Amino acid sequence: MPTYRAPVEESLFLINDVFHIDRYANLPGFADLSPDIIEATLAEAAKLCEQVIAPLNRVGDMEGCTRHDDASVTTPTGFKEAFRQLTEGGWMGISAPVEYGGQALPGVIGNIVNEFLASANLAFWMYVGLTQGAVDALIIHGSAEQKATYLPAMIAGKWTGTMNLTEPQCGTDLGMVRTKAVKQADGSYRISGTKIFTSSGEHDMAENIIHLVLARIEGAPAGTRGLSLFVVPKFILEAGGALGPRNQVSCGSIEHKMGIHGNCTCVMNFDDAAGWIVGGENHGLKAMFTMMNHSRLGVGIHGMAISEVAYQNAAAYSKERLQGRSLTGPKFPDKPADPIIVHPDVRRSLMTIRALTEGARALIVWTGLKHDIAKGSDDPAVREQAEDHLALMTPVIKGYCTDGGFTNAVLAQQMYGGHGYIAENGMEQFVRDARINQIYEGANGVQAMDLVGRKIGLDGGRPVKTFFAEVEAYLAGAAKDEGLSSYAKPMQEALRHLQQATGWLAKNGPANHDDPGAGACDYMHLFGLVAFGFMWCRMVEAARAKLPQAAGDAAQRLNAKLVTGRFYMERMLPETAMRLARIQSGSASTMALPADAF
Amino acid sequence: MPTYRAPVEESLFLINDVFHIDRYANLPGFADLSPDIIEATLAEAAKLCEQVIAPLNRVGDMEGCTRHDDASVTTPTGFKEAFRQLTEGGWMGISAPVEYGGQALPGVIGNIVNEFLASANLAFWMYVGLTQGAVDALIIHGSAEQKATYLPAMIAGKWTGTMNLTEPQCGTDLGMVRTKAVKQADGSYRISGTKIFTSSGEHDMAENIIHLVLARIEGAPAGTRGLSLFVVPKFILEAGGALGPRNQVSCGSIEHKMGIHGNCTCVMNFDDAAGWIVGGENHGLKAMFTMMNHSRLGVGIHGMAISEVAYQNAAAYSKERLQGRSLTGPKFPDKPADPIIVHPDVRRSLMTIRALTEGARALIVWTGLKHDIAKGSDDPAVREQAEDHLALMTPVIKGYCTDGGFTNAVLAQQMYGGHGYIAENGMEQFVRDARINQIYEGANGVQAMDLVGRKIGLDGGRPVKTFFAEVEAYLAGAAKDEGLSSYAKPMQEALRHLQQATGWLAKNGPANHDDPGAGACDYMHLFGLVAFGFMWCRMVEAARAKLPQAAGDAAQRLNAKLVTGRFYMERMLPETAMRLARIQSGSASTMALPADAF
Repeated sequence: MPTYRAPVEESLFLINDVFHIDRYANLPGFADLSPDIIEATLAEAAKLCEQVIAPLNRVGDMEGCTRHDDASVTTPTGFKEAFRQLTEGGWMGISAPVEYGGQALPGVIGNIVNEFLASANLAFWMYVGLTQGAVDALIIHGSAEQKATYLPAMIAGKWTGTMNLTEPQCGTDLGMVRTKAVKQADGSYRISGTKIFTSSGEHDMAENIIHLVLARIEGAPAGTRGLSLFVVPKFILEAGGALGPRNQVSCGSIEHKMGIHGNCTCVMNFDDAAGWIVGGENHGLKAMFTMMNHSRLGVGIHGMAISEVAYQNAAAYSKERLQGRSLTGPKFPDKPADPIIVHPDVRRSLMTIRALTEGARALIVWTGLKHDIAKGSDDPAVREQAEDHLALMTPVIKGYCTDGGFTNAVLAQQMYGGHGYIAENGMEQFVRDARINQIYEGANGVQAMDLVGRKIGLDGGRPVKTFFAEVEAYLAGAAKDEGLSSYAKPMQEALRHLQQATGWLAKNGPANHDDPGAGACDYMHLFGLVAFGFMWCRMVEAARAKLPQAAGDAAQRLNAKLVTGRFYMERMLPETAMRLARIQSGSASTMALPADAF
Repeated sequence: MPTYRAPVEESLFLINDVFHIDRYANLPGFADLSPDIIEATLAEAAKLCEQVIAPLNRVGDMEGCTRHDDASVTTPTGFKEAFRQLTEGGWMGISAPVEYGGQALPGVIGNIVNEFLASANLAFWMYVGLTQGAVDALIIHGSAEQKATYLPAMIAGKWTGTMNLTEPQCGTDLGMVRTKAVKQADGSYRISGTKIFTSSGEHDMAENIIHLVLARIEGAPAGTRGLSLFVVPKFILEAGGALGPRNQVSCGSIEHKMGIHGNCTCVMNFDDAAGWIVGGENHGLKAMFTMMNHSRLGVGIHGMAISEVAYQNAAAYSKERLQGRSLTGPKFPDKPADPIIVHPDVRRSLMTIRALTEGARALIVWTGLKHDIAKGSDDPAVREQAEDHLALMTPVIKGYCTDGGFTNAVLAQQMYGGHGYIAENGMEQFVRDARINQIYEGANGVQAMDLVGRKIGLDGGRPVKTFFAEVEAYLAGAAKDEGLSSYAKPMQEALRHLQQATGWLAKNGPANHDDPGAGACDYMHLFGLVAFGFMWCRMVEAARAKLPQAAGDAAQRLNAKLVTGRFYMERMLPETAMRLARIQSGSASTMALPADAF
């Protein structure tokens, strides 16, 4: 069975040495955040994830969730107790406001804990994550009364949350939502319709479930402009806040899925269920996007998180499994064979996973900091710049980190040979679980379209120009530094490829909208490659600065950054030219065939 | 539930128009092979696969195999009856010798039927395929008595075959086999040991199961030189050939796997089981490689086969599923949304799968013909050239077609959005089933090492030089042809990349054996890209020649070849430069870290 060790040192290196969290003492909550507190917090999270939550990962996969005849749902053995421990530890509200019982730690710390949880058990995490997403939406869009009513119990983990968007006929295209809402004399609404793919939709771990539901008020405009968001609790609350009667919402069935079996993905039936509007009428999409943007970053984190845990197990296996001899002569002549880590193709796989996982983690920490800046800085220009970064990087992180997370899980599984295909070894579960990250919260093709169709042209291209300028300036300096130039120079070429691609899309897109569409996926990957490469330069720089004072394991970890950064430049960056060439080939051959030729 | 339609026209186009099977009338069995007979044969195979075998694919996935307390195994509902229909139709012996009851059709036709069967139901196919592999090994290495004893019943499908190689401590490294054989006074042996991952190891579809087992005779040398192959029937045969007593071989358990649930992957316990040697003592590895080379080509076919069936379902879905509007304006303004095939990113996915699937099919048909030539030509020089081709292309087809088959299945699943993750839609099964092709019969890393470590240096590089010369000469001609030059020119650059990579490995490999190891996977992909590109040139040439006489659907299919070939050159070929750059970066950063840094 796979094991998991939370990479606390990796996270500390990023927040302390690469991104210097101590420079952000002006942001709310950062001043109190001493290195000791951060380390203790992460160590505590690590313990919970390693000892309590990770051991349930395979249990969840094997048992799945069970729906009973009365539409109630039982979660896998151990989930309920682990959820109790998690909520009692205050982890549900780690980044939530103190006034509702949260810990109000910066988002950048919350993201790290999010990674640990998802590495340990993605299906379990989803009960937490959906609740946190619903909390975020209520904080921003809920009325004062709604916040007071729902937030404390949700942040305490007594109640959990869900997000009900998808219907059988509509996924990406939310304008096609049919679930309807009828206004009642008391200001509430009656909600009717069927939602599918509702994660954590029904379970036995919380006293109440707070559904956020996208629906169309009778008479509202067609399309997305006519959508409103409603809060629909499983148990309607009585005047004093006690649980009252059961609402007319229930789980019709649980989906049979490729993975994340431990989470109950429900078909939810709303049958004149009582609901209360969140935000104004017809402002549902905006509120939903608050949850989705948060979720998209989270899903990107999970791509990286599964990559990490798959890597850890593959690395351990590669040092234990004896098979064949090194190409350069036996390394352990006294053993019947060498451990497979001597084989360059096994090394290539391990190094590839590391290069992409660590690049992703850095980009996520950096972006987490931007999120905190966007939320907390008192300088509007600084906030705007941080928001630009978030807008630009959200689709890159969601799309690129989850594509990489999946291919990394596959690489890790491959190292096990036939044993990777056997369920008991757990590697195939990582592959099946990682696959969902590419699909939900906007399939990666949708992320790519968001990037090329919306984000790179945003505000006259301000976000992308700012990013290019920052990377360009950094590389110009680094290219002159003897220790960094071998990293910076290939990156200068990679950045040029990204700039060329951006220019090509800007020039050709207006005349043929299919051109950006046909190049979108390649552009997203090209962007991710450059962003990760920039992160590698920053990590190498930080490692070089710290190496003279380091010894032992710490020195080895820093040295590994220099080597892995070099591997990234040599082995990953050559992909940028391929992506550029594909984009510049346009859409003609992609779109030429008539539909009935397929 | 997915459906399947065997691509008979595609196969006929390749064997008739691209590779001109009528020019091979000199080979045994080819002269009688009129186009009508081929078409009727494939149509009959298509019917069986579409109507009988494909509908059992999901049944097999859901039910799996069941081992009972008496160690007997029940296959999924319907498998037994379908197997009866298949064997009664003579398909088991399609390419087997007439003298043992086979149809003796050329291997190139057998491969096409193999594709159809695997597209329909890979897990079911394996009961057939393992038997065919054992038949091949007995034909080449068995004694006259063994052939007479076993082949007729196996070719008739009354008995099936297996291949017992892997043990818990040894997979790739067969030198570590521990299963032992002790010679008896009557010339037979007693076999003891445990084999794992034995596909089709025990089941209820045949009266007897003929196990081929790799074991070490007491006192034999260590390593692979001390291995012998034994035939170990489940029921020992009596003098007249009737089934006698049960042999001491049984299924200890069935593995729980990621996919191919319909096939029983067994742990087999041999407990002083009676066995008879096949070929000479200590010649086991050679005999096993006969089966493995056959199987490796077969596994490459299956990569392509799953790609095909996944494509068919994704293409159908993309024309039905309504979601969003075309970037160039609504195409079906009267419908609530356009079908998703209007979106360039969906098209990109469909075109990518087509380009790789059709390229793979062409390479497999071409190689199948070479197999028939190697087996049947009376010209030693022609045979040698065909054998060179087989040696070179076997790892390319196994590795590249299965890597592509998996990524294509993932692409096809992705087009379904969330619905692709739901078991009932069947797309996730294709992904899980396709995954095994990258792993078994030598994991793809082993194929890549076979290519760079053994095949490109074979006989002074004769096979690779011959291949390069053939492609180079073809492209030189095609570059001067107005209709082909736009295909040939990018291919000339791609071939140069492959030649440069080959030269780099030849130059650097001797000094640092890790260099070819670190570049092996990239080299295999680079080789595959060039081989598929050559196939696309040939297909485009044939399509252009035929187009003037074609109309309707046939013309549309030929025109699609021109467009898909262009897509291949524009979108797939840019990958060759990336592969070359990676190879030329050597192994330094890949190998630099100490093992305990992982």
